[in-house]
Amino acid sequence: MLIIFCGIPSVGKTLIARRLAVELEKRGRPTFVVGSDDIRRLVPAHEEEFDPGRESFIKETTLHLVDYLLGKGKTVISDDTNYYNAMRRDLIEIARRNNTDYAIVYVYAPVEYALKWNRERGEPIPPEVIQRIHERFDVPGKKYRWDQPIVSIDSSETRLEEAVKTILQKLDELKPQGEVKRFSDSGLGRSEEIDRVTRRIVGRVLAEGGDERLARRLSSLRRSFVKEALERNLSLAQVESEFTERVRSVLNGEAH
Amino acid sequence: MLIIFCGIPSVGKTLIARRLAVELEKRGRPTFVVGSDDIRRLVPAHEEEFDPGRESFIKETTLHLVDYLLGKGKTVISDDTNYYNAMRRDLIEIARRNNTDYAIVYVYAPVEYALKWNRERGEPIPPEVIQRIHERFDVPGKKYRWDQPIVSIDSSETRLEEAVKTILQKLDELKPQGEVKRFSDSGLGRSEEIDRVTRRIVGRVLAEGGDERLARRLSSLRRSFVKEALERNLSLAQVESEFTERVRSVLNGEAH
Repeated sequence: MLIIFCGIPSVGKTLIARRLAVELEKRGRPTFVVGSDDIRRLVPAHEEEFDPGRESFIKETTLHLVDYLLGKGKTVISDDTNYYNAMRRDLIEIARRNNTDYAIVYVYAPVEYALKWNRERGEPIPPEVIQRIHERFDVPGKKYRWDQPIVSIDSSETRLEEAVKTILQKLDELKPQGEVKRFSDSGLGRSEEIDRVTRRIVGRVLAEGGDERLARRLSSLRRSFVKEALERNLSLAQVESEFTERVRSVLNGEAH
Repeated sequence: MLIIFCGIPSVGKTLIARRLAVELEKRGRPTFVVGSDDIRRLVPAHEEEFDPGRESFIKETTLHLVDYLLGKGKTVISDDTNYYNAMRRDLIEIARRNNTDYAIVYVYAPVEYALKWNRERGEPIPPEVIQRIHERFDVPGKKYRWDQPIVSIDSSETRLEEAVKTILQKLDELKPQGEVKRFSDSGLGRSEEIDRVTRRIVGRVLAEGGDERLARRLSSLRRSFVKEALERNLSLAQVESEFTERVRSVLNGEAH
């Protein structure tokens, strides 16, 4: 089974995920907690300088490891912000490929708490990053049925033990009632999803200002990219990052 | 390229490996440092109780990740004790499958230093473990040409910067002289290697005391296991751990 945690940085996901893993293991389920931070840690140069290309490879490797562990019959907790539903969708696709169930757990708190907790541990994450992810966060289940969390935890009002107990209960309830969500429930086609993700990126750029010429240019770029993405069988996270880069390079070209 | 570090625990491998990775990255080589500790960390239950089955899966996953990263063209530093040459041999096999070169780096120090450094960081490793690995350590290059390190670093007498500089020099020297070692140089067949590993295990058990009946029993167990290992295409590390378990269960049976 794949348990997908989502929530802004520094909201307490890792703490809950790791305690949950210990409890699942006690119930006989070998459980791994995997986040992109764990892969990032393997690249010592990351601490010296940030590189977007490397970052995208790190995300790819994280998904690969999740895939591998699910394929070996392990329970995996994805411990990442997973803040766009496209990211959750990519994870769900991996669960489906491995013929296993998934469950989404949403951990939230007022952003001021996350900023405070981050300060208390010496500000490992730049506050702007927390703020930005907070603003862009796709609250799970708002748009799609497949994206519905089994539980939402307000970590500013819930003790760790209690949070873990609630998640365990919800996981237990899933099976007997046959309510475990399957990817096929979503009813969304691949090309629709890619369409939606790329449209949103273009929309955001144009909302920040842009003339008709730029709109036409981005629209044609988008159409050809959607075709390419389908052919190359890109994941939604890859679509998100590659298309953002292409749009960026068009904008840079315009500026010159 | 795969850089295989080996050395007893707490001898300074990680420190050197991570600094080396930063330097390689500066020279344009994306570099990952991967050890079984990094995978073990993904299993929170590990801190609560040790499980040999899990341990063997963790080693398998570590090798898989090394394989994946080499396949993506990354430079990988294996940061593990790698204390049997069978372990180094498994890694070399992975490098060969990915058509890439390898280099062995041996980091050593008097065992008293390792014990002292381990004490200084709050004894994360049980001292018996360090002592045991020290006693069993196959010094690289003693038996096989393919196992020859490009450099041996005495970490009790070498400053970090100096160690990294020496390794970088040795790595630079490799290429122009076409001296990079290839697996095919070893001239050892797979079944010979499995034979050797299993014989050694039986030898050790009998050396600790055992009658003729036990010798016959282990010998027949060994022969059938060698066949099975070849059929199942087990890695040498798997041979090592699975055969050790089987021998152990025979011994337990004898004791009853």
